Amino acid sequence: MSARPEAWIARRDAADVERDLVAAAGPLAGLRLAVKNNVDVAGFPTTAGCPSYATGPAASDAVAVARLRAAGATVVGVTNLDQFATGLVGQRSPYGGVRDARRPAYVSGGSSSGSAVAVALGEADLAIGTDTAGSGRVPAAFQGIVGIKPTLGVVSTEGVVPACRSWDAVTIFARDLDTASVAMGVMAGGPGTRAWPVDVPLAAPAAARVAVPDELPGMAPGWAEAFEAAAERLRADGCVVEAVPFTSFLTAATLLYGGALVAERHAAVGAFVDAHAGDPALDPTVAGIIHRAGTPTASALVRDLERLEELRATSMALLDGFDALLVPTAPGQPTAAEVAADPVGVNSWVGTFTNFCNLFDLCAVAVPSGTADGAQFGVTVVARTFHDAVALDLARRVGLAAEPVAGAGAASPLPEPASPWPVAAGVATERLLVVGAHLRGQPLAGELESRGARWVGPASTAPRYALTELDTVPAKPGLERVGTPGASVAGELWEVSTGALGSFLANLPAPMNLGRVELDDGEWVVGFGCHAEAARGGRDITDHGGWLAWLGR
Amino acid sequence: MSARPEAWIARRDAADVERDLVAAAGPLAGLRLAVKNNVDVAGFPTTAGCPSYATGPAASDAVAVARLRAAGATVVGVTNLDQFATGLVGQRSPYGGVRDARRPAYVSGGSSSGSAVAVALGEADLAIGTDTAGSGRVPAAFQGIVGIKPTLGVVSTEGVVPACRSWDAVTIFARDLDTASVAMGVMAGGPGTRAWPVDVPLAAPAAARVAVPDELPGMAPGWAEAFEAAAERLRADGCVVEAVPFTSFLTAATLLYGGALVAERHAAVGAFVDAHAGDPALDPTVAGIIHRAGTPTASALVRDLERLEELRATSMALLDGFDALLVPTAPGQPTAAEVAADPVGVNSWVGTFTNFCNLFDLCAVAVPSGTADGAQFGVTVVARTFHDAVALDLARRVGLAAEPVAGAGAASPLPEPASPWPVAAGVATERLLVVGAHLRGQPLAGELESRGARWVGPASTAPRYALTELDTVPAKPGLERVGTPGASVAGELWEVSTGALGSFLANLPAPMNLGRVELDDGEWVVGFGCHAEAARGGRDITDHGGWLAWLGR
Repeated sequence: MSARPEAWIARRDAADVERDLVAAAGPLAGLRLAVKNNVDVAGFPTTAGCPSYATGPAASDAVAVARLRAAGATVVGVTNLDQFATGLVGQRSPYGGVRDARRPAYVSGGSSSGSAVAVALGEADLAIGTDTAGSGRVPAAFQGIVGIKPTLGVVSTEGVVPACRSWDAVTIFARDLDTASVAMGVMAGGPGTRAWPVDVPLAAPAAARVAVPDELPGMAPGWAEAFEAAAERLRADGCVVEAVPFTSFLTAATLLYGGALVAERHAAVGAFVDAHAGDPALDPTVAGIIHRAGTPTASALVRDLERLEELRATSMALLDGFDALLVPTAPGQPTAAEVAADPVGVNSWVGTFTNFCNLFDLCAVAVPSGTADGAQFGVTVVARTFHDAVALDLARRVGLAAEPVAGAGAASPLPEPASPWPVAAGVATERLLVVGAHLRGQPLAGELESRGARWVGPASTAPRYALTELDTVPAKPGLERVGTPGASVAGELWEVSTGALGSFLANLPAPMNLGRVELDDGEWVVGFGCHAEAARGGRDITDHGGWLAWLGR
Repeated sequence: MSARPEAWIARRDAADVERDLVAAAGPLAGLRLAVKNNVDVAGFPTTAGCPSYATGPAASDAVAVARLRAAGATVVGVTNLDQFATGLVGQRSPYGGVRDARRPAYVSGGSSSGSAVAVALGEADLAIGTDTAGSGRVPAAFQGIVGIKPTLGVVSTEGVVPACRSWDAVTIFARDLDTASVAMGVMAGGPGTRAWPVDVPLAAPAAARVAVPDELPGMAPGWAEAFEAAAERLRADGCVVEAVPFTSFLTAATLLYGGALVAERHAAVGAFVDAHAGDPALDPTVAGIIHRAGTPTASALVRDLERLEELRATSMALLDGFDALLVPTAPGQPTAAEVAADPVGVNSWVGTFTNFCNLFDLCAVAVPSGTADGAQFGVTVVARTFHDAVALDLARRVGLAAEPVAGAGAASPLPEPASPWPVAAGVATERLLVVGAHLRGQPLAGELESRGARWVGPASTAPRYALTELDTVPAKPGLERVGTPGASVAGELWEVSTGALGSFLANLPAPMNLGRVELDDGEWVVGFGCHAEAARGGRDITDHGGWLAWLGR
């Protein structure tokens, strides 16, 4: 029934699924959802990849699942994973190692192995993953799909088996960014989730500054070249791409398993693992890691957390002045045989460019980026805490469409949401009408871009305004609501967080002001006006219809 | 030389101090600063209350000390403390237990014992303390002075011996709130400190909602009555004071020493303590606590942190809808003999109302609040993370001036700073001129108060404006800059964070707008304007001089 039956731990009856798909309503209606089996789905045992861990079917959906279902998604089944979400290879499961959707000698990536493969195969349109060390990104890269790893805490982890509760994120896989974005906007938010600051950016600037590692250790043949091609695409799109020292990022990655931080895994499921020594359902590699994680002292953990904080401070200082960091999602894709020969070493290598991310409280979007030496190649845009819309924007600009898996059928992407998903998740924004020096390409547009404003597109006022050329430097027009008779004036809309709007107003010089402006569709948005005195002293240019027309007269 | 010589570990030569006081420049010029001896002062050994811990004089000042000195403060010496800042009683030190400034049978409170007593005695105008479990608040209460415990991380802890680095704050003691506020504004900020959100409140609303505990366990005779008197003062000032369940706060307090969280103390100085077993310089109570703190596993610490997070979520939900929490700073003041008889039990009792605060990432201001059964009685206003200005505002409204210690001389408070100290520490704010419905007491003033705006006072525009009565509900005037001839219009200034300003603009209906308005002193601030069309249609009321005059015509 599935091209990779090991991707699934359990599937719903096909007829039930079909009936639900037809009956569904909401923004995700008609989309099939697969759920990593460390996340509760009512009626399915939550095994976390260990059959004896589940004591029975889950009584209710995890919050993340419930929110997607309420928006119309139809659950099709629960997917295989590296046991207790401990691993990046997808091979550590008594349900079988999950193989690559295209090349069965290779691993799927993990720990969200089944979710990623189900999406790549077209057996699900959406899938929930979890990500502590890269589990929502590595399998996306290997399977040629998209993985959104949001800022920690913005998606509820209620009903999710913890791996390391301080660094666990619930993630979304889809074949395209638009579908993944709509789903993320639905899934994020709700009780107990982290509040967004009021001034988060909604996009990267047109000329974004993007950091890349100054070293790419352990890259498989052809993979460094594929990464350079991605950086080159960003440059061609107007970004500045510059190398930064990467040692502090790589050192943090080693802390995740190499010190006391791994105790988080013991706190999560150690009591079960310790009590089930010899249980054949336990993966020996995973059980060994978790059992040993019970040993370090709390004092050692505090010291390692202090070391982590130092590495974070160093790394964040290196990213000062950059909008985001671009990394290869993984350095290469191992075969199942290579993993079997060195389960721990190969796993660590795979996580080279993902492990630091959650430890540093960063967000990330993994996107396909062509092929390398026969493998799907992926890159990840990493951005600051709560800068999820920046990562999304740059991922859109750097990503490439991957070839679908043979037989998987074409995806039917959802339309791009009207705003980046953090807005659906709770970031308050306003649309701002500009009619002069803040039009895109005009001298003051940078005041909006530097505040994370997102350019929406052209718009015009209702026919009740007058436009005046003011005596300012740089030259600006003044828009005045004059009622009838008045004219429709051409402008553009930006979307901006309310926090950034306040900072913009605080820096706005006389004679400009901001208030409600009526658009030609009858909607009122925030827009520019000017002092009556200034307008009275200027030249009436209303008849030109807009500032650009006046400039080009 | 000192009325409580045990308060000092070392003092500078008096002549040097006098010379520096005379030569000082800056906002703190002429103020004498005492520094708790777990904070580096160049030239003094940083003993943390344990002579053998210091390897020699500190090479440079801690960041907090350096910032105060750069603003003109003169260091007079370094003060005694509960060893390694472990304790709330001030008796755990080989330099001697510090006694109360007024009543020598009683303890000073700790761990910042010497700093608080030095200020109470008038031997210092300002003192630096540190606070993990209440060390910046309990001694303030017992000594009848002010203690500001800021949000974690907004003051640098560089150059400070950690107690529990996750929950350590550097604090300020002074005899009055204004002096403490100015010092806090200078001390906060700098490299590595926590960034303030852009929308923090600058004051509590006039009718603030203040929670109080529904139980006051262990209060000494007369202390509950003194607390009720403080609550009554807030009610008389227009606040709503309501009881909330307090169990989750009290339970969190027990986690600080009763579980694995105490491992933070071992991570900080455990290597030293473990290596110096039998050193007579080690206080036996402190050494025992720290030595045993090396035992818990990391896994247990992770579970205790999870439990703490649950208690925090519960407690914060209980505070929903409240601006702050008022607590007695301590339940009573023990004698030195009582502490000696039960060093651990009495210490825990003293921390009943302080221990939860830093664990929950809250800020606090402790102020004198009269006397109870012969003791100085103090209350603490606790507010949310980064709501330091709310705590300060309410502390100002609830606090009472304490009687100075006999012989201490009168304090010379600094003038109240123009803005609450978080503004000096980096919160961006604007002053907003209102001329109509947002005047204090008018129907829309609540839109500013609910956004944390602070009422500054009356102000008038430059004589270049016109005022119109608009056709709006509620009634509003429209202010227009008309140039010459124009009039000066009466209004009021509020101070508001830029983040809140954006939210205010986003909710501002037509025909109002916001831009720069010129005041009669020539300064331009953000202020109201209106659409030209609306102004044209209204009645000119400029001759009345302002909206209130028009309303009262």
